[in-house]
Amino acid sequence: MCKSNIDVFFNPRSIAVIGASQDSSKIGHIIARHLLDAESRVYMVNPRAEEILGRPCYPDLASIPDSIDLAVVALPATGTVRAVEECVRKGVRGIIAVGSGFGETGEEGERLERQIREILRGVREGERPRLLGPNTVGVYVPRNRLDTLFIPRERVPRMESGWWALASQSGAVGVRLMVAGREMGLGLSAFIGLGNKLDVGENEIMDYLAEDVHTRVIAFYLESFADGRGFLERCRQITLKKPVVVLKSGRSQAGLRAAALHTGSLAGSDRVADGALRQGGVCRAYDEEELLDLVLALGSLAPLSGPRVGIITAAGGHGVILSDLIESRSRGVGLRLAEVSEEAKKKLRSSLLPYASVENPIDVTGNATNEHYEAALNVLLDEEGVDAVICILVYDTPALNERLNDFIIERFRRTGKAIVVATIGDEATRRSLRPLAEAGIPVYPSLWRAARAVAALYERGRYLRLRGVLHIAEETLADKWGRGVNIGLEGMPGSRGA
Amino acid sequence: MCKSNIDVFFNPRSIAVIGASQDSSKIGHIIARHLLDAESRVYMVNPRAEEILGRPCYPDLASIPDSIDLAVVALPATGTVRAVEECVRKGVRGIIAVGSGFGETGEEGERLERQIREILRGVREGERPRLLGPNTVGVYVPRNRLDTLFIPRERVPRMESGWWALASQSGAVGVRLMVAGREMGLGLSAFIGLGNKLDVGENEIMDYLAEDVHTRVIAFYLESFADGRGFLERCRQITLKKPVVVLKSGRSQAGLRAAALHTGSLAGSDRVADGALRQGGVCRAYDEEELLDLVLALGSLAPLSGPRVGIITAAGGHGVILSDLIESRSRGVGLRLAEVSEEAKKKLRSSLLPYASVENPIDVTGNATNEHYEAALNVLLDEEGVDAVICILVYDTPALNERLNDFIIERFRRTGKAIVVATIGDEATRRSLRPLAEAGIPVYPSLWRAARAVAALYERGRYLRLRGVLHIAEETLADKWGRGVNIGLEGMPGSRGA
Repeated sequence: MCKSNIDVFFNPRSIAVIGASQDSSKIGHIIARHLLDAESRVYMVNPRAEEILGRPCYPDLASIPDSIDLAVVALPATGTVRAVEECVRKGVRGIIAVGSGFGETGEEGERLERQIREILRGVREGERPRLLGPNTVGVYVPRNRLDTLFIPRERVPRMESGWWALASQSGAVGVRLMVAGREMGLGLSAFIGLGNKLDVGENEIMDYLAEDVHTRVIAFYLESFADGRGFLERCRQITLKKPVVVLKSGRSQAGLRAAALHTGSLAGSDRVADGALRQGGVCRAYDEEELLDLVLALGSLAPLSGPRVGIITAAGGHGVILSDLIESRSRGVGLRLAEVSEEAKKKLRSSLLPYASVENPIDVTGNATNEHYEAALNVLLDEEGVDAVICILVYDTPALNERLNDFIIERFRRTGKAIVVATIGDEATRRSLRPLAEAGIPVYPSLWRAARAVAALYERGRYLRLRGVLHIAEETLADKWGRGVNIGLEGMPGSRGA
Repeated sequence: MCKSNIDVFFNPRSIAVIGASQDSSKIGHIIARHLLDAESRVYMVNPRAEEILGRPCYPDLASIPDSIDLAVVALPATGTVRAVEECVRKGVRGIIAVGSGFGETGEEGERLERQIREILRGVREGERPRLLGPNTVGVYVPRNRLDTLFIPRERVPRMESGWWALASQSGAVGVRLMVAGREMGLGLSAFIGLGNKLDVGENEIMDYLAEDVHTRVIAFYLESFADGRGFLERCRQITLKKPVVVLKSGRSQAGLRAAALHTGSLAGSDRVADGALRQGGVCRAYDEEELLDLVLALGSLAPLSGPRVGIITAAGGHGVILSDLIESRSRGVGLRLAEVSEEAKKKLRSSLLPYASVENPIDVTGNATNEHYEAALNVLLDEEGVDAVICILVYDTPALNERLNDFIIERFRRTGKAIVVATIGDEATRRSLRPLAEAGIPVYPSLWRAARAVAALYERGRYLRLRGVLHIAEETLADKWGRGVNIGLEGMPGSRGA
């Protein structure tokens, strides 16, 4: 009962919109409109309407001739309290309380939260509805077309279905992560706005997502921990199965104060949090872009078995800059450039152009053809001493073109090694690489972001080895996975299991 | 004579393309085609053609019935050596040697470079032509439509005219910086591919750009210094007038080795370089994105007079994340969040919504109208204790919309304080803010990049104060500029002088 009663927020069979509205500017209208598409039976509730969006409207929950799994309450704070009572009477299993004006605004709001808590406490445990929020933007589960976000789709385009789960203590931060992630090609298994966390908090959400087969990477935006110890205990277990990425703000004094004003939450010392998150195997992000970059890498690729990075470029200068970013500890990620074996160099010398560099970074030169680039990729992927390859790709030289994408995708599917693509340019540059992204290869529009992504894959591999999950001494990673060690990568392109 | 003889690479009255070609796949064709648009008299040279691109073709330089300022030599290495001799005989003042196969490829190439050096040394100093390259991608000066880049415009769109000058030791790095910078709205005063720096190096280019009225910010991509001491002496003088941004690669052992293989250059110890660049007032960038971000900020805005940053947001969570990035020293820029005075808070309380936060970061809330946001901006810009304002802007809430851009632009024009905009989202998000960028306000698509830009403005202000350039104790920055202190910001939106 402890886990499954959260499932109602992800897979409700029936939904009531309390406060559904005919007025298209109202939150209750937007939510109702989006829910018309849901894979659930949807009922409108509003005492002052007969019909909303072509659906019959009920004056109250009790009048609905159906059991209700999930109630979305789109009412102001005081109305929300009454609606919760109604939900209890109806036997609703989950409540999403969208309204604001609760604990985040001061004493009066706190009093209303206490009232809700008491109402819930008064219900027998097996029958007690679970509550998400209040002050939550709601949930979004693309595969079920379950969308309770009260921001119109015209204003905020929604993500496609995918493998990334996001739970956010801030609705706006969550929504913007989804918009930016969508542009990067990420798809979503579920989004959960945590809001004021009166009942359901990040820990239960994490438990649920840990078991969710649709979710490959779990990401959190948090301003506070409802139960920090519980969060970290979970992380230590769950990160052995799936990557967990956390953007925890309120790190600085100013951030702490701002967080307290924003969600009314009291965050603890960040130094403690940082060490604990690291011990828990969490990948910590420090801004929204980093969170997305890490999610993309960790969900697309296997953790690295070592720190040795190979680089292929058609522009020597980019190879030099990236080499610095890979190796430097002060302004870089502190990994290592792979040494190329003598045998590999011989192969490269015979297949590349005369002035190409056969040392890593492999510079195929601006005159290289697709075949030259392909030869370099083959050699690096075959090298034992290479743990990951970063392909710097720009199709602006005379003899490289988008047909190279097909080759890289094909090699990506057959290798156990990480391939990450870095590019520099504009929308047209990025568009030319979209097939790679669609095939599951992480593509980053900057050298630094590619380097940071590879470092995250290395750190995750190191953590798993420390925890004894991967014993990859002689065996290849791919073999290991082939035998089904579940590290959350099933069915992923790039793993032998696919 | 020492400075002006470089001017021929920027403002030639006549140009000869040696190795002009009818074959559209040849470099000699691409260069010839682009130069047809130039504001110069252009002559084609090729002994095997009568006519190229509708222009008469001359068998050699000597046959051209005009004096030639600039010769673009689009020939292989050995042909280049002969062409240099021809240029000397003709009295050409500048040579751009595009061909590769010189010092960067080994001994034979070094021998050819020595030959060129000897030819040039044999000419009397006043008559000696200057040589850019070899192995250079050429120059691009948009305002003169002088474009010798041998990459077709169809493949690499060119930047508009503007105030940013870039000199790059790597052609590909330079070209990609231009493509990415163009998307950010940057315009170019001049691009110079330094190539192998046989004759003209970064120091002379810096001297020239320091005096160039079209150039507001000078940026370099370098893998080595031809004369490090000379470079730093220049920086110490020139950074008092204009910002200089340097991306110097070859920082790590791997990068050093890669740089040696790439341009054949031997870079020195990076720790020495780093300290020296800092003392020279140089803003150092560590990747291509950072270089562009710093150029945009330093060329658009005045240096800060202090580290106190104000933040306005309609989404509390974004304010919390940015506060951390501003204040944190470990994963942030180590500036300070401005304290808002009691009087300002009173004003904010009376003009903002009840649940808005009147502490910095100012959270106008998701229900804010344009007028609420405007009131917050007015208050922060009027606060003495605020040195810069970061506006987090996303037009996805019900009552904020693009008309707010006009107000921000208007305030930007009337303030001496820095305004930087940060946004999070997708192409549509960024498009809605384009008017701000066009008005000269730096817009960054991530919170971190905005924070880093503000930090660069603060560092530059601090450096200038240390060097005694700005005494801004009581006077406002704008007053100071009104009196014409030249810090390279004349005619810039955002400065009172504009």
